[in-house]
Formats: sequence, C-alpha cells, structure tokens
Amino acid sequence: MNQNTRTAIEAVVQEISENYRTEELLIRKHGRMMPNRATVIEILEELRKILFAGYFQADTMEPQLSDYFVGQSLTEIYGKMKNQIELAMIYMSEAGADEEEISQEAEEICVKFFQRIPYIQKMLLKDVQAGFDGDPAAKSKEDIIFSYPGFFAILVYRIAHELYVQNVPLVPRIMSEYVHGSTGIDINPGATIGEYFFIDHGTVVVIGETTTSGNNVKIYQGVTLGALSTRSGQQLSGVKRHPTIEDRVTIYSGATVLGGDTVIGEESIIGGSAFITHSIPKYTKVAVKNPELTIKAPEPKGKGPQWELV
Amino acid sequence: MNQNTRTAIEAVVQEISENYRTEELLIRKHGRMMPNRATVIEILEELRKILFAGYFQADTMEPQLSDYFVGQSLTEIYGKMKNQIELAMIYMSEAGADEEEISQEAEEICVKFFQRIPYIQKMLLKDVQAGFDGDPAAKSKEDIIFSYPGFFAILVYRIAHELYVQNVPLVPRIMSEYVHGSTGIDINPGATIGEYFFIDHGTVVVIGETTTSGNNVKIYQGVTLGALSTRSGQQLSGVKRHPTIEDRVTIYSGATVLGGDTVIGEESIIGGSAFITHSIPKYTKVAVKNPELTIKAPEPKGKGPQWELV
Amino acid sequence: MNQNTRTAIEAVVQEISENYRTEELLIRKHGRMMPNRATVIEILEELRKILFAGYFQADTMEPQLSDYFVGQSLTEIYGKMKNQIELAMIYMSEAGADEEEISQEAEEICVKFFQRIPYIQKMLLKDVQAGFDGDPAAKSKEDIIFSYPGFFAILVYRIAHELYVQNVPLVPRIMSEYVHGSTGIDINPGATIGEYFFIDHGTVVVIGETTTSGNNVKIYQGVTLGALSTRSGQQLSGVKRHPTIEDRVTIYSGATVLGGDTVIGEESIIGGSAFITHSIPKYTKVAVKNPELTIKAPEPKGKGPQWELV
Repeated sequence: MNQNTRTAIEAVVQEISENYRTEELLIRKHGRMMPNRATVIEILEELRKILFAGYFQADTMEPQLSDYFVGQSLTEIYGKMKNQIELAMIYMSEAGADEEEISQEAEEICVKFFQRIPYIQKMLLKDVQAGFDGDPAAKSKEDIIFSYPGFFAILVYRIAHELYVQNVPLVPRIMSEYVHGSTGIDINPGATIGEYFFIDHGTVVVIGETTTSGNNVKIYQGVTLGALSTRSGQQLSGVKRHPTIEDRVTIYSGATVLGGDTVIGEESIIGGSAFITHSIPKYTKVAVKNPELTIKAPEPKGKGPQWELV
Repeated sequence: MNQNTRTAIEAVVQEISENYRTEELLIRKHGRMMPNRATVIEILEELRKILFAGYFQADTMEPQLSDYFVGQSLTEIYGKMKNQIELAMIYMSEAGADEEEISQEAEEICVKFFQRIPYIQKMLLKDVQAGFDGDPAAKSKEDIIFSYPGFFAILVYRIAHELYVQNVPLVPRIMSEYVHGSTGIDINPGATIGEYFFIDHGTVVVIGETTTSGNNVKIYQGVTLGALSTRSGQQLSGVKRHPTIEDRVTIYSGATVLGGDTVIGEESIIGGSAFITHSIPKYTKVAVKNPELTIKAPEPKGKGPQWELV
Repeated sequence: MNQNTRTAIEAVVQEISENYRTEELLIRKHGRMMPNRATVIEILEELRKILFAGYFQADTMEPQLSDYFVGQSLTEIYGKMKNQIELAMIYMSEAGADEEEISQEAEEICVKFFQRIPYIQKMLLKDVQAGFDGDPAAKSKEDIIFSYPGFFAILVYRIAHELYVQNVPLVPRIMSEYVHGSTGIDINPGATIGEYFFIDHGTVVVIGETTTSGNNVKIYQGVTLGALSTRSGQQLSGVKRHPTIEDRVTIYSGATVLGGDTVIGEESIIGGSAFITHSIPKYTKVAVKNPELTIKAPEPKGKGPQWELV
C-alpha cells in the first residue's frame, strides 16, 4: 500500500467513525450490547440436533446415552439462549430500566421455552407425517426430516413462535429470517399454526404476523397469507390484518389470501393463483378461471415474440 | 443457573429422552446409523472443486499438477461417498438385511458414479454455453460458473441424478434440497434433463420427479413442471405424473405445465404465466391474454388502494 | 478400497485431467489465476461488520475504540479486495496485457471504492428508515438491520454497484449472486437505485442490469423489472433493456414491468400481478382486474379436483 492509499484510507476511517458518533443505530444504543446474529443461528442449529438427534450430529449418538447428550447440550444452549434473550431485552428496554430484573425475567422466559421443547418435538413429528402423506415424491419420512425446506421452516417457526409469545424482542425475527433466507419461506413468528402443517416446495411462501391457521392445513409454493394494505405502516402494528385459515384447508401454488377479517372455512380448497380478499364458507372449492391462451404457429425464424421476460 | 432452573432442565431432559424411546424416527431405526447431511454437502462442494478446478479452490492449482490434485481429492471423496451411500442403504433396508452385501453394492454404485464424472463435466460445459448464449447480462462464461444459481442447481442435479438412477436412498434428496435451499430452484433428482439446459434467474423453479426434458430447453424463474393432483399421496409414488418437454422449448417466467400425459412439442414457446394442462404441438407459441388492467387517477391523499399485499 | 476400484478411479482421474487440458475454461485461461469466490464473500461479510458495527461482530465493540477497529479491518479488507479485483481484471484482460498497469488501476479502483463507504453507510440508514416506515411487522429498526433479507440485498447491491460502475469484472456478480442465493432477491449490480429503497419479503425479486429506479421506491416479493426479449442474447449486451421507475413508486407483489423504454411515472402504484410493457404516466394507479373465480360445493369424497399442483 503506497502512502497516498494509506492517507486515503485514514480519511475513510475518520468518516466512518464520525458516522458511528452521529448515528448510534450503527453501533450501540445507550452504550448497550446487542444480541449476536451468529449465536442465535447457532442456538437454532443446536436445538435442531436435539429435536432430531439421529440426523444432524457429526458423531453418532447412542440412544442409551441420550440423557447425557441431551443434558449437556441443553445446558450449553440454555447459557447461550439466556444470554441472547437478556441482551435483546436490555437493548430494547427504556433507558434506565432495571437490568437485574430483566435478567431475572430472561431466565424465566428461557425456562418456559425449554419446557416446551418436548411438545415442539411431538408437533414436528405430526408435521413430518403430514409431509409424508401429502407428497408422493417423499421416499421416506427421513427424507422430509433431512431435506425438506418446508419442514425446516416449520421447525424454526415452532421454536421462534414460543419466544414471540413471550415477547422476546429481536431474537424470534433473527430466527425466522434466517430460515427465510435459506428456504424462501417467510413465516412471521407471530403467526398461529395448528398441527399437521405441511408446506410443499415452499419457495416464496409468506405467512403474515397475525395469521391464524388450524390443523391439517397444506400450503404450496408461492402462497401469500397477507394484509390488505400497509399504507398506514407502524400504526397497524399489533392489529389483526392477516387471514384465518380453518382446519383441513389446502391452498395451491401462487394463491393470495388477504385481510384480517378473511376466513377460509374448514376443508375448503383454494385453487392455484386465486386472489381472495373476502371470507370463503367451509367445504368450498375455489378455482381461478384461467386466462385465455393465445396459441399460434411460430413466427418466421429469427423474429422472436415481443413479451419475453428476462 | 439457579437450582430451580437446573431442576426444570433436568425434567425436560427426561421428557426428550422419553420421546426418543417412544419414537425411533427421532433418533435411529433398528439401532442403525444415518447418513450425515453435513458430510453429503461436503461431498457436493468437493465435487464442484474438481469439476471446475479454477473457481472454487482456496489455493491455486497448477494444471500440470492436476493428476495429483484430482487423484487425492477423488480418493477422499470416494471414502466419504461410499460411506454415506452405505449408511443410507443399510438404514433404509429391511431389518435383517445382509449388510456385507449392501456394502459391496455401495462400492459398485460409487465406482459407477465416479466413472460418470468426466461426462458430467462435459455436460456442464454445454450448460455454461447455453447460459452464456441466452443471457445478455452474462459478461463472461466465468460469471456463470462462479455465480449463476441456475448453473449451480443444474450442477447439483447432474450429480444427484446419477445417484438417483442407481436407487441410492436419502442422499440424492439431501443434495437437491441443499441446492434448493441456496438457490430456490427445486429440481427433483429423478427428473430427466437433456443437454444445453439453462435456468435464468431461477428462484421458485419446481421440476417434478417424473419430468422429462429434451436438449436446449430454457426455463425462467417461477416455472413449475408439476403433477395434476397429488390427492392420492403415496399411491402415486413411481407413476409418471409430471410433463415431457421436447427439444428447444422455452418456458417463460411464472408458467405452469402440469400432468404426466402433457407433452410440450419441440421448439414451442410457452409465454409467461401460462397455465397448461394438456399437450401443445411442436413449433407452437402459447401466450397468455393478459388480464385487463384498471387504470385510474390517484385517490385523494391518505386513502390507499384496497388490494395491497403484505 | 479394492484393486478394481483403485484402477477405476485412476482411469477417471486421467479422463478429468484430459478434460482440463482440452477445455481451459475448467481450470485457467492463459495460465492466469482467478479470483476466489470464498474470499469475495468474506470481503462482503467484513464490510457488513464495518457498516453496522454493533450487529455482526462476535466480540463487543466499544465506540471509543472504533478508529482502531475500523482502521485495522479496512486495512485487511483493502488487501483482500485489491488482490481479488486485480486477479479478476488480469484474468479477463487480453493476452499480453500490461499486468503492472492493471495492478495500478486495481489500486485506484479500490481506493475510490473505499472513499464511497461512508456514503454507502448513510444511504443504508435511509433504506432502514424506509423499511421501518413501510412494514408494521417491523418491531424496530434493529430488526431490519439484523434480519431483513430485503435490506441485506440492498446492502450488497450498494457495494457491488460501486465496483460495477468502475468496470470491475466478475467480482460484482459474485457478490450479487451470493445475496441472490441467500435471499432470493436478484438485483443486477448494474441497476441504478435511488435512496429510501425498500423490498418487502423479497423472494423472487428480479431487477435487471439496465434498470433505473428513483427515490422512495417500494417493491414487494415476486416483482420483475425485466427486458422484453433476450432472443438476441449477447448482441443486447450494454443496451438499455430494463425499465425506469421514478420517485415514490410502489410496485406490488408479482407485478412484472418490462422494457427499456418503459417508464413508471412518479407516485404511481402498480397493483399486484400487473403485467406492464408500456409507460405509465405519473400519479396513476394500475390494478389488475382479477380473473373470475369459480366457486363450487365440494365434490363427493375421494374425487379430488383436476387442477392441483405439485
């Protein structure tokens, strides 16, 4: 690095430090530490190893040693998780909040979360069953646990949701956006989802924060369960603005269901690409009348059509 | 951690261990080990380093040393791959199967797979060419090899498919869902895909298990080559339920082609968002009559439209 | 490994080495080294740690030590980045180009890029604000910085774009396809995007190379800003073929806007799933007349509908 370059970089360093000083969002509010994204993801991956012990371990695990393994793992996860929750809660609290009290609260939240792990495990086994029953390309239930992105998204959702309902800030969303990034499935941790849930293929599924979904619901790629309008931005925070899906509903690929008052009645089937903004009674089948197709003989060589996408 | 917390965690450990005991899907069937997802992904990444030696190595590789490098790498990959295939085959076999025999079979499968690597390499060079010819935003073929998700998805497909046709369980799907996760492109390893294949942009492409695709086929983001119905679930396993795409077909973004009897004839062009459930003769151009647009002057300030999505 | 297997693998090694010899695209052109994808991704991740110092560090960072931290990090990033840019430029240059001169040019490009970092930081703060204002599910601005894939995609775009405008080959595209892979958002580094930009949910957004977007533009998942036709392939390289989006435009989910002459006038709103291939005047609201829905009572049990997707 020559002298000019060195001088130039020094000037950049000064500017960046100046940005840190004028905008505390870049670095630290009230002198507080933030939770760490990498650690939160680590916690998720370690929880997955406990939930499905045979699948994601580098070493083999003997069933007779499971107490030892689970005990040690949970203790480690507990330490990390309590710490991250505490950091997040202190970070987002009012200036001057009692940090001792928050720390105590974080411990209680963490214990309550841990007590839900066996339940999460049982719920996930039902989700595996739903996936296997619903997909002829699934050669085995193991395929689903190892490989299906829709299943991984539900696994992370079931974990993040338990923290969301206890009002933990930042951490549930780090979890849900991690799995959104790795699967294209965006389930807000605030959504309420029943048992035997299956998302097939999954990419570009969006399930909004105030969605409620019953049992045995099946959803395909490209489905949005969304809000009618977000023009009002933060004023809508907390308002029920996403739909309610009752038991045994199937929603096919690319369908959009919008609005907090919209209810899809039980056992109804929503066809691919349908666009629904009002309630649908139970046992109903909704199909889109497909747009007319124009079919013609090919144009002379070299003259391509005018509507190609890139 | 205080005593209450410790006691609570111990109770959770007992419950999880109990879940392991009552549901062997969580941990291990017939006392057998499972393949390891992380190792399978490692194998994929190492195969990619061999296929395109200049691109994914941390160190530089001298062409004159390639025998040494390739020899050493392949020997390592062989060990890992044979082991994973063997684990998967034993795991999924009937109780009491002859493990010695399965191990022998795994070795043969692995050798046959290795003998296909040079062929895969040549196929992939043709796919690179197809990508470069088809995309004006590609500044170089190197761009495609380094960066294009559609190309990575095809690379993994061509590897996973070779294992699928030899009936290896679990492993091909771990591979295809790994790349699905990192690209949004879901090509079932069972699909049959010809040479000069290109997927542009790629996110949310779904290509079903029994799809057959000819040579010089080009597909855009959001395309589904799927089944008409999966209501019958596992009863459809093995049945041809996805379409056949003949040579030199282009399918534009968001189009859906469904059904095992559906054939898209050679050189046909399927327009964006088309929804096709019956065969299309060759040389045909299918376009969707776009839905009518409603265009109006803006509403008074503050009154947003009613159909916004979130 | 038995002798037969060993012999088989040796033959494969020979074939692969032969492929390397006959096709230099596999390994190295003109005996030159390539940039390294992993290093380029490392550079990106390290830049992110500097841009938002409180969020992505494993260790805590004290604001008063920021000069030291930023200085050291930038020096390291500089070394890696200059090296990668130099490798890419030499690799893609004509045979016999003056490598000394290229190295000098790489240094200048790198310095210019560094001088833009504080500006990028300020632009990103505006993008955070746009995200927070636009999404009622955002509990805090920190949520957006930590977790939102749309924000990560913009962050990477703003970095890659600075290298693109200085004509750096290979590296910008490695960056943009890395974030495409991890978010499903495909913003070509060549696109021009104004301030206060927000992409909600984000999966399957495609923003083409010659797109121009003004300030305060908001885009939802599934939006394509694309070209009308790429039949002419590489002949279109460099031609303006993607649309222009003016200030304060909102484009809802699944909409497609195509063509280099297409201009969406300021403050216009493009409804979900609209398909636009011509200019729209300012202050206009475009909505799709939704396709008619067919609603019927459920079929007798066991007879599923005919249009289900898989």
